Amino acid sequence: MKALVYGGPGQRSWSDAPDPRIVDPTDAIIRVDTVTICGTDLHILGGDVPAVQPGRILGHEAVGTVEAVGAAVSTVGPGDRVLASCISACGRCRYCREGSYGQCLGGGGWILGHLVDGVQAEYARVPFADLSTYRLPATVTDEAAVLLADILPTSYEVGVLNGRVRPGDTVVVVGAGPIGLAAILTARLYSPARVIAVDKAVSRLEAAKRIGADITITPDDDPVGVVNEVTDGLGADVVMEAVGTPGTFELCATLVRRGGHLANIGVHGKPATLHLEDLWIRNVTITTGLVDTHSTPTLLRMLGAGQFDLTPLVTHRFPLAEMERAYEVFADPARTGALKVVLSRS
Amino acid sequence: MKALVYGGPGQRSWSDAPDPRIVDPTDAIIRVDTVTICGTDLHILGGDVPAVQPGRILGHEAVGTVEAVGAAVSTVGPGDRVLASCISACGRCRYCREGSYGQCLGGGGWILGHLVDGVQAEYARVPFADLSTYRLPATVTDEAAVLLADILPTSYEVGVLNGRVRPGDTVVVVGAGPIGLAAILTARLYSPARVIAVDKAVSRLEAAKRIGADITITPDDDPVGVVNEVTDGLGADVVMEAVGTPGTFELCATLVRRGGHLANIGVHGKPATLHLEDLWIRNVTITTGLVDTHSTPTLLRMLGAGQFDLTPLVTHRFPLAEMERAYEVFADPARTGALKVVLSRS
Amino acid sequence: MKALVYGGPGQRSWSDAPDPRIVDPTDAIIRVDTVTICGTDLHILGGDVPAVQPGRILGHEAVGTVEAVGAAVSTVGPGDRVLASCISACGRCRYCREGSYGQCLGGGGWILGHLVDGVQAEYARVPFADLSTYRLPATVTDEAAVLLADILPTSYEVGVLNGRVRPGDTVVVVGAGPIGLAAILTARLYSPARVIAVDKAVSRLEAAKRIGADITITPDDDPVGVVNEVTDGLGADVVMEAVGTPGTFELCATLVRRGGHLANIGVHGKPATLHLEDLWIRNVTITTGLVDTHSTPTLLRMLGAGQFDLTPLVTHRFPLAEMERAYEVFADPARTGALKVVLSRS
Amino acid sequence: MKALVYGGPGQRSWSDAPDPRIVDPTDAIIRVDTVTICGTDLHILGGDVPAVQPGRILGHEAVGTVEAVGAAVSTVGPGDRVLASCISACGRCRYCREGSYGQCLGGGGWILGHLVDGVQAEYARVPFADLSTYRLPATVTDEAAVLLADILPTSYEVGVLNGRVRPGDTVVVVGAGPIGLAAILTARLYSPARVIAVDKAVSRLEAAKRIGADITITPDDDPVGVVNEVTDGLGADVVMEAVGTPGTFELCATLVRRGGHLANIGVHGKPATLHLEDLWIRNVTITTGLVDTHSTPTLLRMLGAGQFDLTPLVTHRFPLAEMERAYEVFADPARTGALKVVLSRS
Repeated sequence: MKALVYGGPGQRSWSDAPDPRIVDPTDAIIRVDTVTICGTDLHILGGDVPAVQPGRILGHEAVGTVEAVGAAVSTVGPGDRVLASCISACGRCRYCREGSYGQCLGGGGWILGHLVDGVQAEYARVPFADLSTYRLPATVTDEAAVLLADILPTSYEVGVLNGRVRPGDTVVVVGAGPIGLAAILTARLYSPARVIAVDKAVSRLEAAKRIGADITITPDDDPVGVVNEVTDGLGADVVMEAVGTPGTFELCATLVRRGGHLANIGVHGKPATLHLEDLWIRNVTITTGLVDTHSTPTLLRMLGAGQFDLTPLVTHRFPLAEMERAYEVFADPARTGALKVVLSRS
Repeated sequence: MKALVYGGPGQRSWSDAPDPRIVDPTDAIIRVDTVTICGTDLHILGGDVPAVQPGRILGHEAVGTVEAVGAAVSTVGPGDRVLASCISACGRCRYCREGSYGQCLGGGGWILGHLVDGVQAEYARVPFADLSTYRLPATVTDEAAVLLADILPTSYEVGVLNGRVRPGDTVVVVGAGPIGLAAILTARLYSPARVIAVDKAVSRLEAAKRIGADITITPDDDPVGVVNEVTDGLGADVVMEAVGTPGTFELCATLVRRGGHLANIGVHGKPATLHLEDLWIRNVTITTGLVDTHSTPTLLRMLGAGQFDLTPLVTHRFPLAEMERAYEVFADPARTGALKVVLSRS
Repeated sequence: MKALVYGGPGQRSWSDAPDPRIVDPTDAIIRVDTVTICGTDLHILGGDVPAVQPGRILGHEAVGTVEAVGAAVSTVGPGDRVLASCISACGRCRYCREGSYGQCLGGGGWILGHLVDGVQAEYARVPFADLSTYRLPATVTDEAAVLLADILPTSYEVGVLNGRVRPGDTVVVVGAGPIGLAAILTARLYSPARVIAVDKAVSRLEAAKRIGADITITPDDDPVGVVNEVTDGLGADVVMEAVGTPGTFELCATLVRRGGHLANIGVHGKPATLHLEDLWIRNVTITTGLVDTHSTPTLLRMLGAGQFDLTPLVTHRFPLAEMERAYEVFADPARTGALKVVLSRS
Repeated sequence: MKALVYGGPGQRSWSDAPDPRIVDPTDAIIRVDTVTICGTDLHILGGDVPAVQPGRILGHEAVGTVEAVGAAVSTVGPGDRVLASCISACGRCRYCREGSYGQCLGGGGWILGHLVDGVQAEYARVPFADLSTYRLPATVTDEAAVLLADILPTSYEVGVLNGRVRPGDTVVVVGAGPIGLAAILTARLYSPARVIAVDKAVSRLEAAKRIGADITITPDDDPVGVVNEVTDGLGADVVMEAVGTPGTFELCATLVRRGGHLANIGVHGKPATLHLEDLWIRNVTITTGLVDTHSTPTLLRMLGAGQFDLTPLVTHRFPLAEMERAYEVFADPARTGALKVVLSRS
């Protein structure tokens, strides 16, 4: 088959790879129908994730059709159309028992396209299929479903739920890339009074408006002043960091009100400065997190009930064989305006 | 009357001051029967709290007898023996309505011995008496009650409740001064499997043992190794910072398990480094906070029911007039072994 | 002045009454600008609330203008346009300190038009004004605000928050009178997948549709079958009782899924049968409650931010002097189609 | 092998039965080392649980040694000493994913000794072994561990956690049989101010004292008066029903304070009367539930850490072959004083 193979920092190719096969009785083999690319894949290509070895097939977000399952798989079977989630779960360890699948101690967690071969391929092996794939209702399109492989549960769990968005809140989302946009969309589920999006790129702020932000500003527009003005000087109830740099994290810490929540969603490569000399007295809660995907069944039910319009999140579509071109477009959003790029088996 | 008057950085004296009188209809005047000194008072004397003006009477932890109340005070009256809490509360603002009295927007919060004259004096004015004083049952001694003015609710709310200690947890408390010791004591209310105390001073570790720590170590005893050993390598469920330095905070962040809580109690003067490059993926919750004293009525009920033995927390006792000597002893714990020093009207 | 005076069971008149005056330093006197009638007022007239003595002025939902305040009132003053809430709060007792104002032990709770004279009058005394009145922003109309005196916080706190409505839920509201309709409206704040309204009256089901119900049925339409069909046989996540009869409560208990919530909002006069022989194994949570109005500030912020369209709730409008006619219309909804009737000073 | 076989209402015998064998790849076969009898077994023998067919081997609480496992079992293996829990869990359905294993939709829940053969036998098949058995540390005795098969997690989850016991609370437990006693023991984990036990049998009240009750009374000792006296007339914060009759449930509803919790643990065969005419206004939360055993790993950690003394719960010990005599003793507690009876392979 063909697959997107990592060749070491800076190197990737859509090339031949062996067909996957059942290894463990909990495995499923899927034919990949729809797949997308994540910012994390670019980090891997940048050499920032040394656990990924050359030769690894990338990708952790797909919709596919089950081809075969191992002897212990009971919830999906050949012919089922399924979501393959970014998180695999053994379902038996302490973390899995608490719904914290992202921290699985039994061989799961984020492994696809990381520690085992991923789904940017014509076929893929999905470990722990019972807890890592989800049968899709007919009313849900592939393109919508594939956004539930990672960015919707990530923004919802790590941003909205960790940040405890509540009705009437003022919510700030710093970073309006795909994750930030999904955070705006899912924050709306809790009826905040207003969502303020902050990003450098005007095109992303426009997307933020379309997906539900009430106020959109750049970091140069005095975010502290804007937030204080709409909150009688209190600050934001919830601030979400969706960039992953020290500067944006530190900006978030200046925007959150006393008693508020700062939910970090961004993937960070460097430490930030935590101004405890200010924050110690402010009753602030800061959370971090890898997605657990415990919300995926709920999000799927909501998607099936027509509660989400995800179309603003997908800007480009390609046939599967144009994976390399899709990477080029996705890797250069300033020029292409790319948010999520979706590839489909033709 | 006599009072402990702040004269600017490094200067304090037990000297004459005008008797307090009712200013607002919500005030009470109390005769101070029992009072103590807080580490914060030493910070003020060190010049670290510039909001405190020379001439200010210090102190925010007392038990006294009500002498007079303003027209709007309805829950305490002359002759009542009361706890005067470190936090005053207007009871009407958004934060007070949510029980977050420490963040009061209506003139309360931590004001005693800070923005208004405090209780290290023969008499004191207590603003917002209805929500800032608590009538004491006869079964509770002054010496026990005065510890509920600050250190017990602080350690319980900001450490134990924010840190969400649960039965069976492994809890680490970094810093075994009065606040850290009170955190150990109140963490026990939730039946953790074990409490590990970390401090440089052996005498404080001995106090930690007496008050309920199971394991006591110095920072040189490889805290990460000790915690990993008793938690099968997971790390601690809850870590409390009770010192207030960047180094101790950063130590705490290395001890907390994935999915765990780091509750900062310490008063910080400098920023710390937050290693987001490690923490972003670890589902960690970090909290900060000034005490709200919403737990004070509960703690008082528990004290009245005989649920606390607070005697290990008090190391020195003085008559009120020896306030200056009490400060000297309290300010030099390495030599004196002082934890809380209590002064009483003779 | 004129006021609606209760004369014993079945007797009411818009008649002369003495002007109210400040009694306690925490009182406010308001000129009533807008007022409404509650189903509870009809219960009083039916003789069901014996604590209400003949001669009592009824009414507990008003918007007015402050005329005078007692010496201890600090948050509102003469000329302020305010909401007078159905719940008064001393702000000092154990329940008030926990935000449970409806259970106030210090003389508050539901007292207006019950234990003290109410607001269906030209002027009214509002006890504990600091915690029982709310200054209104200019952007909020009287007619919208008066619905926050009782029905919105009641349905939101006792129905939606106690019932723990969450995104994606199936919610059933039994009873589509004013409280049930407000429950449908405020349940929407948490983005349930669907809200099912059950009522005997087709006109009320039409109102339910307008305010946001997805499915509307009568009790004869096999509610259990309808709920099972849309929930794959599981039952509803949240069921709210908004009628107040044994039969409707017992219907609710048959609709809730294992692990679900049954939130009782209705005012009951008789016991119901609790089928513990079925329910003991079903992990069901049943809640009851009088409104606490802890959510009123949040609801007001949301109203000011334009988050509610309350117009479907008001069906009839009268000048204040036509109070008796308003009662007649409100008391006969089957004929008049009345939901909330609003009276205004002309 | 020998096993306790149900022969229809009133009939049981320790008789020959076929050795169990692996049926599904998720099964384990255990040699039963220690086993106990539950009140539910007596209900079955009384004919109250018609789902149990004649020929069924009873029992759902055991400690054993793994003999064999199916191909899909990965967390336990031959030779492991394990706890076999009363709840089996598929680990894949909606309820299991939320930790609500007792409500498993995938073939689990309470099935042992109910829908499939149980553990009162020399050998037993345990379905879904990965999520239904727990490897035991060497420091834990069989006799202590077997109490974690049912009564400890049941009382802790359905009583203490559902009832939200908090430090300083007044807790009432109605019924001091094994479950009620375990509720007293586990309520202590949250440091209530006092636990009041109510039972008709003086011998059970003595056991309640030994296990940690502060006050013990019979239903004739005016429970309402006793509770009001120690709570300043408020009522109990948490009341647990651990009997299973309408009268005891209704007693509980009169003991709980406004804003308090009534946690039903008892197995009921008849409906109770719910006095909504009183309760609608009292902000009461009533919960029911079958145990989920989500707390079992935590309870095991605590048992391993020496946090429980369970010896007062076991009154009689027998060799496995004396199963019939053990049933006789357990079925007649008024005469024998039996709490839990434990049978062991000799």
